[in-house]
Amino acid sequence: MSKRLVAANAWISSDSRYAAEALSYAGFDSVTVDLQHGMFGIDTAVSLLQAISAGPAVPMVRCSRLDGAEIGKLLDAGAYGIICPSIDDAEQCRDFVGACRYPPVGTRSFGPSRGLLYGGPDYVDHANDSVLTWAMIESRSALDNLDEIAAVEGLDGIYIGPNDLAMSLGERPGGAMPESVREAIRRAVQVARARGIFVGAFCGGEDAAADMVDCGMDLVTPGNDISFLRDAANRRLSVIRRLTTLVSDASGY
Amino acid sequence: MSKRLVAANAWISSDSRYAAEALSYAGFDSVTVDLQHGMFGIDTAVSLLQAISAGPAVPMVRCSRLDGAEIGKLLDAGAYGIICPSIDDAEQCRDFVGACRYPPVGTRSFGPSRGLLYGGPDYVDHANDSVLTWAMIESRSALDNLDEIAAVEGLDGIYIGPNDLAMSLGERPGGAMPESVREAIRRAVQVARARGIFVGAFCGGEDAAADMVDCGMDLVTPGNDISFLRDAANRRLSVIRRLTTLVSDASGY
Amino acid sequence: MSKRLVAANAWISSDSRYAAEALSYAGFDSVTVDLQHGMFGIDTAVSLLQAISAGPAVPMVRCSRLDGAEIGKLLDAGAYGIICPSIDDAEQCRDFVGACRYPPVGTRSFGPSRGLLYGGPDYVDHANDSVLTWAMIESRSALDNLDEIAAVEGLDGIYIGPNDLAMSLGERPGGAMPESVREAIRRAVQVARARGIFVGAFCGGEDAAADMVDCGMDLVTPGNDISFLRDAANRRLSVIRRLTTLVSDASGY
Amino acid sequence: MSKRLVAANAWISSDSRYAAEALSYAGFDSVTVDLQHGMFGIDTAVSLLQAISAGPAVPMVRCSRLDGAEIGKLLDAGAYGIICPSIDDAEQCRDFVGACRYPPVGTRSFGPSRGLLYGGPDYVDHANDSVLTWAMIESRSALDNLDEIAAVEGLDGIYIGPNDLAMSLGERPGGAMPESVREAIRRAVQVARARGIFVGAFCGGEDAAADMVDCGMDLVTPGNDISFLRDAANRRLSVIRRLTTLVSDASGY
Amino acid sequence: MSKRLVAANAWISSDSRYAAEALSYAGFDSVTVDLQHGMFGIDTAVSLLQAISAGPAVPMVRCSRLDGAEIGKLLDAGAYGIICPSIDDAEQCRDFVGACRYPPVGTRSFGPSRGLLYGGPDYVDHANDSVLTWAMIESRSALDNLDEIAAVEGLDGIYIGPNDLAMSLGERPGGAMPESVREAIRRAVQVARARGIFVGAFCGGEDAAADMVDCGMDLVTPGNDISFLRDAANRRLSVIRRLTTLVSDASGY
Amino acid sequence: MSKRLVAANAWISSDSRYAAEALSYAGFDSVTVDLQHGMFGIDTAVSLLQAISAGPAVPMVRCSRLDGAEIGKLLDAGAYGIICPSIDDAEQCRDFVGACRYPPVGTRSFGPSRGLLYGGPDYVDHANDSVLTWAMIESRSALDNLDEIAAVEGLDGIYIGPNDLAMSLGERPGGAMPESVREAIRRAVQVARARGIFVGAFCGGEDAAADMVDCGMDLVTPGNDISFLRDAANRRLSVIRRLTTLVSDASGY
Repeated sequence: MSKRLVAANAWISSDSRYAAEALSYAGFDSVTVDLQHGMFGIDTAVSLLQAISAGPAVPMVRCSRLDGAEIGKLLDAGAYGIICPSIDDAEQCRDFVGACRYPPVGTRSFGPSRGLLYGGPDYVDHANDSVLTWAMIESRSALDNLDEIAAVEGLDGIYIGPNDLAMSLGERPGGAMPESVREAIRRAVQVARARGIFVGAFCGGEDAAADMVDCGMDLVTPGNDISFLRDAANRRLSVIRRLTTLVSDASGY
Repeated sequence: MSKRLVAANAWISSDSRYAAEALSYAGFDSVTVDLQHGMFGIDTAVSLLQAISAGPAVPMVRCSRLDGAEIGKLLDAGAYGIICPSIDDAEQCRDFVGACRYPPVGTRSFGPSRGLLYGGPDYVDHANDSVLTWAMIESRSALDNLDEIAAVEGLDGIYIGPNDLAMSLGERPGGAMPESVREAIRRAVQVARARGIFVGAFCGGEDAAADMVDCGMDLVTPGNDISFLRDAANRRLSVIRRLTTLVSDASGY
Repeated sequence: MSKRLVAANAWISSDSRYAAEALSYAGFDSVTVDLQHGMFGIDTAVSLLQAISAGPAVPMVRCSRLDGAEIGKLLDAGAYGIICPSIDDAEQCRDFVGACRYPPVGTRSFGPSRGLLYGGPDYVDHANDSVLTWAMIESRSALDNLDEIAAVEGLDGIYIGPNDLAMSLGERPGGAMPESVREAIRRAVQVARARGIFVGAFCGGEDAAADMVDCGMDLVTPGNDISFLRDAANRRLSVIRRLTTLVSDASGY
Repeated sequence: MSKRLVAANAWISSDSRYAAEALSYAGFDSVTVDLQHGMFGIDTAVSLLQAISAGPAVPMVRCSRLDGAEIGKLLDAGAYGIICPSIDDAEQCRDFVGACRYPPVGTRSFGPSRGLLYGGPDYVDHANDSVLTWAMIESRSALDNLDEIAAVEGLDGIYIGPNDLAMSLGERPGGAMPESVREAIRRAVQVARARGIFVGAFCGGEDAAADMVDCGMDLVTPGNDISFLRDAANRRLSVIRRLTTLVSDASGY
Repeated sequence: MSKRLVAANAWISSDSRYAAEALSYAGFDSVTVDLQHGMFGIDTAVSLLQAISAGPAVPMVRCSRLDGAEIGKLLDAGAYGIICPSIDDAEQCRDFVGACRYPPVGTRSFGPSRGLLYGGPDYVDHANDSVLTWAMIESRSALDNLDEIAAVEGLDGIYIGPNDLAMSLGERPGGAMPESVREAIRRAVQVARARGIFVGAFCGGEDAAADMVDCGMDLVTPGNDISFLRDAANRRLSVIRRLTTLVSDASGY
Repeated sequence: MSKRLVAANAWISSDSRYAAEALSYAGFDSVTVDLQHGMFGIDTAVSLLQAISAGPAVPMVRCSRLDGAEIGKLLDAGAYGIICPSIDDAEQCRDFVGACRYPPVGTRSFGPSRGLLYGGPDYVDHANDSVLTWAMIESRSALDNLDEIAAVEGLDGIYIGPNDLAMSLGERPGGAMPESVREAIRRAVQVARARGIFVGAFCGGEDAAADMVDCGMDLVTPGNDISFLRDAANRRLSVIRRLTTLVSDASGY
């Protein structure tokens, strides 16, 4: 059985240009700047996109909300793809996709800024084709409207947010994946396949990412940068603590 | 045989306040802001120290050079300890320790700023006692003068920089530890023990940190934050790539 | 007659992490970052919250508007309380409170970021209980709907904005409190007492704060940081100018 | 007896552009950005100077050290005056004054940047005359060499740092002024008068400033911005606390 | 024939305080900070407004969207004029103008911040009169509703966005002006003249600006700062390349 | 006669990441971040280097002074070349070149940071060969020692600073090039040719750049970014003002 093509996506929630550039060079296919839960705003996000551009990964953004002005600015700032949270029905999905496309297809305002740098002088001619649009499926309503959402003209992919989805389905977020969420994910993969669009998911770590690859995802996000740090810190601390005694206060060493 | 007391020290080279605070909460005894090779200057360093202060770890700084004005500012900004690079002889060590102490012991200028916040209204009375001074041993000259350096009144510890030390001894930096460096480290531990001061080291990762604990270090730094990110990224990518095919360019997914 | 329990709240409108931390250490019970009229955006607000966290005061935010995405991000960034401007009716109040609570109670999206640091690993379990929600009463409509607003399930307090309220009632803002505003404040205190929720107010200075304590407020904000600076500057300048002649231009001294 | 002409100087140690501009408008003759003990570096200092320029006060800087490159950059960034810490002898004073003057008088490098904005197209022609140079007298050595320092060609003023001076004379800094410091200040005033140069001092607050005016100072700095904040906070808190009980933890209100 | 009075307006899309101040001194009547397509957010915008205030030009902002909270904050931050994108009908125009005016005329919230600095203590009394409101006309709907938009009480001017207008009319943006856009501009000038309000336009460069002056504009924006840089770079590079051969990679010189 | 190979170098003195990236894409062979007279410090410089790396130009830095710690940090931050001001004799030149090279050739400290990103995992092996070192010749002393400076092992080029050189030779800076400076430049070209090293110059604009190409320069800098802005502003303003009357104050339009 042959391997499938799956994109590995990094996720930035910290305010570090250097870390963003390092992740762009680390081997990921794309790096996503998270404006929704990331610890920064637009000012920092622009410089994170520049930092990602300095490396080989594709720069993407999860916007903070369905807001045409914000989405337009992030595209001008160099995002090649937008992951939009909480797309709960087809109308929201159409608004989202429209915000990513120039007229007559959509409503994006002209002012391509960094687009003219990374995309070249003909950026405006091809931007409608090259910018990827991902709708986040993360509520019971979104599941109810999944077929209509996936059918929206111009949508490139759906992206599962398992934690918000779990809470919306009455489950606890952050732990092992509840069966109701897993079932929803299976259906999302089927719908995406049927529509010929991509399907991706945020995953808690490497094991969850492997699980999601098995489920048929085209793009997986194996945790965010801070979870990377925490995981690496834990490994190092457990090795050191196995050999030593905890130093409990500053005066102790 | 009983376990020893060893401090685990994190190392910040990226410009992220959020990551710095996360590392302060991650279980390390101290977190060191690296002004020498870190990708930031004084402006960012001050805010990183605030971020570390929001968590339980002890904030320290590796200054960029032996420079009393910079060291004084970093102490005012809330560093509880200074690791000074390239202390090659006793006179440099005396200058370094003096820069960390108020008169009549040293030459630090009055203007305690954040010190009055974290250290309380009596900060100036106890700062000379509570600020830790670490001299970096990272050249052949430093080894030649090690006894005199370690004997400097008021020095709290020596800290080994294995990479610069390797280069100074004619070895390649960054790989497996050459025997000449290991020998130097053994001697540094003995000298520190004899003088009753601390000894610490920068280590490439968790295995090197374990090795340095075995060598007798009181404080080990198991890599910097970017190496944490890279290591965690590699683990995740290897799991994903084992299952899938590399997406080689942006248009591929 | 026994003293009542009243919280003293500082108010940040300047872009200074150091000042924010200093105010957190100055003796206030809480420090509020003002995103509505403060001279900064989200990027700076996050670092101000970190700075407040380094001291003992409770970090709060006045958000710029009733906007679930912004409110969610500020909670993720470490606010323990949100003061929302211009809550004019019960529906807006329900939207506001909902934006501060995780499902099934509310609509807050999962991604706790700094919450996991300051709130601990169980942050998500207790966040709905520990985050304080304050609805600003600052228009004639809000007064008309005050009983319904105060009755909204999960609202923790109402907070009077006397200047906007004055303008809405046809009075001049910024000077002595008009009787119509005072009357509105008296009613707000009664309604809050009856509902068992808190009541607070922004005050122009220390005298207005004392007045508001007398009126029955549970929390008073005695001016913002820039008014603190201006007041202290005026005291110092009046002492100096009493003794001297004004230097009127740069070449004069 | 007629009033004398005395400049009132504000002092910035916090990283707030808005506060800096507010102090420039508050009535001070000059506002000094403190790079030595202020909680920021060059990046922030440049924007603080822009903020001060937006108001009427004269922008000055206390540099972090006697360093021609730093001083030149700060002048390029729009400082009209430099206060240099720790000038202990005439040679240091000549180096300092030289760093502030273009050749052939001094050694300042050409590249006037913001100077061309605030100073006009002929800035380079008059900069040597319009930039004020203040040497800080804050050690026993400086007192020993005071006559020679004050005699340095081109020096515009001496500026007393009472806290570092106190420590250098074996006294405690930060409290009531020791007699030895007062004596040194009297002498500094006499020497300045004799040489026809200015004399100024950093003062702990308004009373100390009044005292220094009485001593004959031409310029007084009545504390820094954070001491302004703290003082105003204390006034407000004491009024509130007199009426109420302390709220001791977050859950208390 | 006498010359008309026409304002020359600079346009900031880059994140440089120094460039903003330089443009304020360069001879323009006004300098507009572009929050819609500019590569920065609110944090940077505030400091750009301070930088513009340091020079003689009038500071204006193009807001990112019709959003009262954002517009209020930008006015508090020192904008003397707001250019609002995509005003497509009279109701939007009324909302926009209302967001710029204090009650009872409008809905702006009280909290004048930098307004009290640049506008003086009586800022609130005259702000409704001194803040200029410009509605952007940049869609077919806006043309359809032009008379009603221009008739909105309190609107000071209409401002043509030729590129978005071109796209809305089915034309290509960014190149030579299509006849349909030119016709729309002629009508906009007539409507503005008839209503006694101003009319302005964004122009691609100096020739387009001259053309728009001929068309009757009261205010012209001859490109943004990055187009200035690019144009100046091209001139210099063409002179150098005429004399030399291209150095095609780093190792080549 | 065939064309020569000459590098066109842009020069950044403003604090704009977007402008820096735009200049990197504008067609220059290299873009130099000016830490000496630029309106920013190390924090901003790092992000400017990232921005330049996002485009095709070679990133270089003019450091603020001959200071090994600063030079090392800038190389770690991604500079491929260093232009060091005020190299006045061979010893300074050796110190400068040494600061750019790892041992045993030089004294650069190990900690390659962004070098590992842009230079690849083998960065440390080839950095000594790929980093360009340019010594600025800008004083009479430097001219006196020119042969010895140019002969320093490992120096890649000399770079003329005509303004400081003019002042050092007793001439006025900033205007037409005095004959003494022109003579010095001719000699510098000869010395560089004889030694087989590069020679470059800072030029006031395009005409001066053409002149310097004629003089034999290998690299020319045709002004800095702010001079680009000013020049483009002047062109646009002169076209607009030719057609119109100056609007002299804010109320005028």
